[in-house]
Amino acid sequence: MGQKILIIGGVALGPKAASRAKRLDPDAEITLIDQDSIISYGGCGIPYYVCGDVAEPEGLRSTSFHSLRDADYFAREKGFAVRTSTRALKIDRAKKELHVKNLNNGQEDILAYDKLVLATGSRPFIPPIPGVEADGIFTVSDIHKAVEIKNRLSQGQVGKAVVLGGGAIGLEMAEAMADLWGIETTVVEMMDQILPRLIDKNIAKMAQKHLEEKGITVFTSERAESFCVEDGKVTAIKTDKRTIDTDLVILSVGVRPNSQLAKDAGLAIGSFGGIIVNRRLQTSDPHIYAGGDCVEMADLISGCNTYAPMGSLANRQGRVIGSNLAGKAESFDGVVGSFIIKLFDNCVAKTGLSLEAAKALGIDALASFVVQADKAHFYPDSSMLFMQMVVEKGTQRVLGVQGIGPNNCSLLARISAVAGILKYRPTVSDIANLEFPYAPPYAAAMDIINVLANTAQNILEGRNTAISQEEFLQRFSARESTDTLFVDVRAAAQGGPLMEKYAPHWLNIPNNQLRERMNELPQDKEIILVCNAGSRSYDAMCLLQKSNTKTLNLQGGIGGLKRAGIIL
Amino acid sequence: MGQKILIIGGVALGPKAASRAKRLDPDAEITLIDQDSIISYGGCGIPYYVCGDVAEPEGLRSTSFHSLRDADYFAREKGFAVRTSTRALKIDRAKKELHVKNLNNGQEDILAYDKLVLATGSRPFIPPIPGVEADGIFTVSDIHKAVEIKNRLSQGQVGKAVVLGGGAIGLEMAEAMADLWGIETTVVEMMDQILPRLIDKNIAKMAQKHLEEKGITVFTSERAESFCVEDGKVTAIKTDKRTIDTDLVILSVGVRPNSQLAKDAGLAIGSFGGIIVNRRLQTSDPHIYAGGDCVEMADLISGCNTYAPMGSLANRQGRVIGSNLAGKAESFDGVVGSFIIKLFDNCVAKTGLSLEAAKALGIDALASFVVQADKAHFYPDSSMLFMQMVVEKGTQRVLGVQGIGPNNCSLLARISAVAGILKYRPTVSDIANLEFPYAPPYAAAMDIINVLANTAQNILEGRNTAISQEEFLQRFSARESTDTLFVDVRAAAQGGPLMEKYAPHWLNIPNNQLRERMNELPQDKEIILVCNAGSRSYDAMCLLQKSNTKTLNLQGGIGGLKRAGIIL
Repeated sequence: MGQKILIIGGVALGPKAASRAKRLDPDAEITLIDQDSIISYGGCGIPYYVCGDVAEPEGLRSTSFHSLRDADYFAREKGFAVRTSTRALKIDRAKKELHVKNLNNGQEDILAYDKLVLATGSRPFIPPIPGVEADGIFTVSDIHKAVEIKNRLSQGQVGKAVVLGGGAIGLEMAEAMADLWGIETTVVEMMDQILPRLIDKNIAKMAQKHLEEKGITVFTSERAESFCVEDGKVTAIKTDKRTIDTDLVILSVGVRPNSQLAKDAGLAIGSFGGIIVNRRLQTSDPHIYAGGDCVEMADLISGCNTYAPMGSLANRQGRVIGSNLAGKAESFDGVVGSFIIKLFDNCVAKTGLSLEAAKALGIDALASFVVQADKAHFYPDSSMLFMQMVVEKGTQRVLGVQGIGPNNCSLLARISAVAGILKYRPTVSDIANLEFPYAPPYAAAMDIINVLANTAQNILEGRNTAISQEEFLQRFSARESTDTLFVDVRAAAQGGPLMEKYAPHWLNIPNNQLRERMNELPQDKEIILVCNAGSRSYDAMCLLQKSNTKTLNLQGGIGGLKRAGIIL
Repeated sequence: MGQKILIIGGVALGPKAASRAKRLDPDAEITLIDQDSIISYGGCGIPYYVCGDVAEPEGLRSTSFHSLRDADYFAREKGFAVRTSTRALKIDRAKKELHVKNLNNGQEDILAYDKLVLATGSRPFIPPIPGVEADGIFTVSDIHKAVEIKNRLSQGQVGKAVVLGGGAIGLEMAEAMADLWGIETTVVEMMDQILPRLIDKNIAKMAQKHLEEKGITVFTSERAESFCVEDGKVTAIKTDKRTIDTDLVILSVGVRPNSQLAKDAGLAIGSFGGIIVNRRLQTSDPHIYAGGDCVEMADLISGCNTYAPMGSLANRQGRVIGSNLAGKAESFDGVVGSFIIKLFDNCVAKTGLSLEAAKALGIDALASFVVQADKAHFYPDSSMLFMQMVVEKGTQRVLGVQGIGPNNCSLLARISAVAGILKYRPTVSDIANLEFPYAPPYAAAMDIINVLANTAQNILEGRNTAISQEEFLQRFSARESTDTLFVDVRAAAQGGPLMEKYAPHWLNIPNNQLRERMNELPQDKEIILVCNAGSRSYDAMCLLQKSNTKTLNLQGGIGGLKRAGIIL
């Protein structure tokens, strides 16, 4: 007789752990239960089902060779039993038994286990807003909801939609509805930026601008107060600033770990409400494993715990649990926080900490911001990448990198180059010399990822007194009442018009004339140097710094401002 | 008075080091000399100039803001002097003087230095083949040669071309000539694969097949013996196997470091003929720095020295030298060997060691080979990636990763995810849990880079007794005279025809029937399991291994064979 393994939850981690355990230990008797009738689906694919890229919901439930992953599939191909529509009621840790209930016929049952796996996932947070129970208000939490949303869209019941919450799922759903279905879509986000906590405000602004170009209305710093309901159906959402008519609402304001079953069994729960696990993914009861959306994880950058509900992490953790169920001693060390999202023709991605997240953790950090092409600059059809690297001041440790670029893998390549290294605590000099593969069709000889580190180093060492777009704009709007001089080192064709418009505060001295015209510049005034991307202005700064210690350099230059929708 | 810095060589590293040093130390008096009249160009871009992607040679010599990087540019914008057409004759280390000669007027001069930088680069190896001096035989070593080649192509003087050497430059030139200019192009490579020493034979075969699909003829294991010359002009090349008519020959059989000047000055030279430098990129004379194509470097994987002439490394090393010239103490630790090349609609890339390279270094290594889509398998328009990971057996240390995929950044993203980590000596479990960013349009939840590590681990632990394509084909051709049974676990539509064709050696039992039909399989015969990509056959192997210890699994499956042009 083999060991008895029970697994609660069958979306991502559960089937993975069961399959792996069965391969390593063919004698094990493994049963997976799930309260839903549908298991093993790619939840992250729901927006692509809604937008039509994936035609049928079965597309999210099939293997790459078109086998539908239902109970029969797992029994035949993977060798373990699945009980769907079966809810776990209680864990009796002393007896090593699980109490379950069949939701179809109400029958209760007790299942014995040697080892138990909690893969109970997460549930969407439902904000306590009056009217939130009305028809037409959806979370994006499972296939059933996805089918219902798509049915309403395809049946022409939806002309206008509101997405509450500007996080990843909300924005993917906004694109899905606006793009294929042409629905007038509004995103309402409580924080002062979209993708809050994931990326910094300057990158978020660029992403928001692109959404707006694609016809999506985005309201940030705006709080939903109530839903207007007629005949039980939602007709509008009232915020603290306006009323927005709508036929459908997507609630995407975060998820919470499903940890009640574990809590009731007396297992340790952390400050995020997730189950606490060790590196082998055992809970405080070594016979019970847990992973995926129901657990907290160590953040390998900060050392603190974090909550990172991601399908990819669930899959990787599922394999570790499967191995350990079979007697191995594998570990999952924690997360660095990698993230990527397609937004129409753009891609936004990050790994590690944003500047804001680092500061919130009490880390004294700064950011370098670089605008550079994704290929050798002489190679045709290149696109611009706008990237930011976050660095701890004292140690020069790289904490994270983020950016926005075209909808292809060019940004992913730069982000992934850093994702794997973060746990080794790299410094800027490690990234400065990172051996990013080079050929003109794919990268620059000095790639943006290297330049980000070089720029950060120059800032850290005081050589590049860089200012952010926000700091620049503050100074620019105050120009009439201050002494600050803006020196534009681009060619006359670019810098000239601004000099005309903003004289005497704006001066245009092209970089190749600067050495001979330095005497035109004051030595006692604050000078802000600008060019198109921030590198020629850095050159200029090195030249001027000796005679004027008040020079500042706009990171990312005028090109960076333009990308964020700011035209001077 | 600032320090006097002399730099010999003005292509990649020289201008970078000079610019950086001048920014950090504005008082330094910096002079760069180069024997050529043209400096500071993107040599790696020459094939893209030849093929027309870059219209004019000036495209390779300009900044992203269209300034031509000539002597005047560097004087005005970077603040250092450039003397072109000036050859370095001799270094007098005792007096700290450099003897130079103006190649235009023959005048000799002596320049004093406090610090000297050797950025003398490399020269193409000219094989000692009779006729090699004939007109029409070119190396791809500088802009002048590139212009001459392109002139001949554009003037219709070339109908047929031969590229001698199937390395990176050779293949890029072959594509350039065949693609835009429609020239009948043949590549002749002495080794038994293209891209030798860079990637392994199985990946090279796939790349070769693609070149052939695009009309390029490739002869491997073929040695050039002489050139046929008429009226001083090359008309054909004779190999040990045939005579190939040609109007133009590209010699691309490797480069050698230009280290004679250093050697004459008594500086240490290594076994590859490159200048020996420490991590601060100082030669054996601490007042003399060197970097780029003229030096040897530590290989961070093997610990041995290696020769890695790459424009990207030269740029990064140039910055380190520039910093150190200005009194900093930066270091460049060595190289891991990242490489990428565009071949028509494909991309081939690697970082670290190939299996063959590892074995040549005496490392006991094996390879996992995986075929997987570059996006979530349910997401439309995905492409297949074919990748291989090389792992040291005892330590489970990952030594390198390589692959072939579509001509976009999807392969680069996977290679770059590993490139930066290699110096930290990652094991397979580090890569198994590498936090590659996940969203369906860009990656799989369990991405190929994770699966490569998982597969390697299964092989290392004896769970997956994987065989390579080569081993499979040996057994398959010997099937009539051996007991080996081939069991195809794909659906009947795929596996059935092969069963009919190769019975009784080929059996088709779809994976979902295997558990109930196991009794049809012999327990004493060698069984080779195949599916389309190698994952279902691994599932089957886990099931069968208990009753039959002679099961083997074809890595990459039938799909992998097809990609290499092998149809059973």
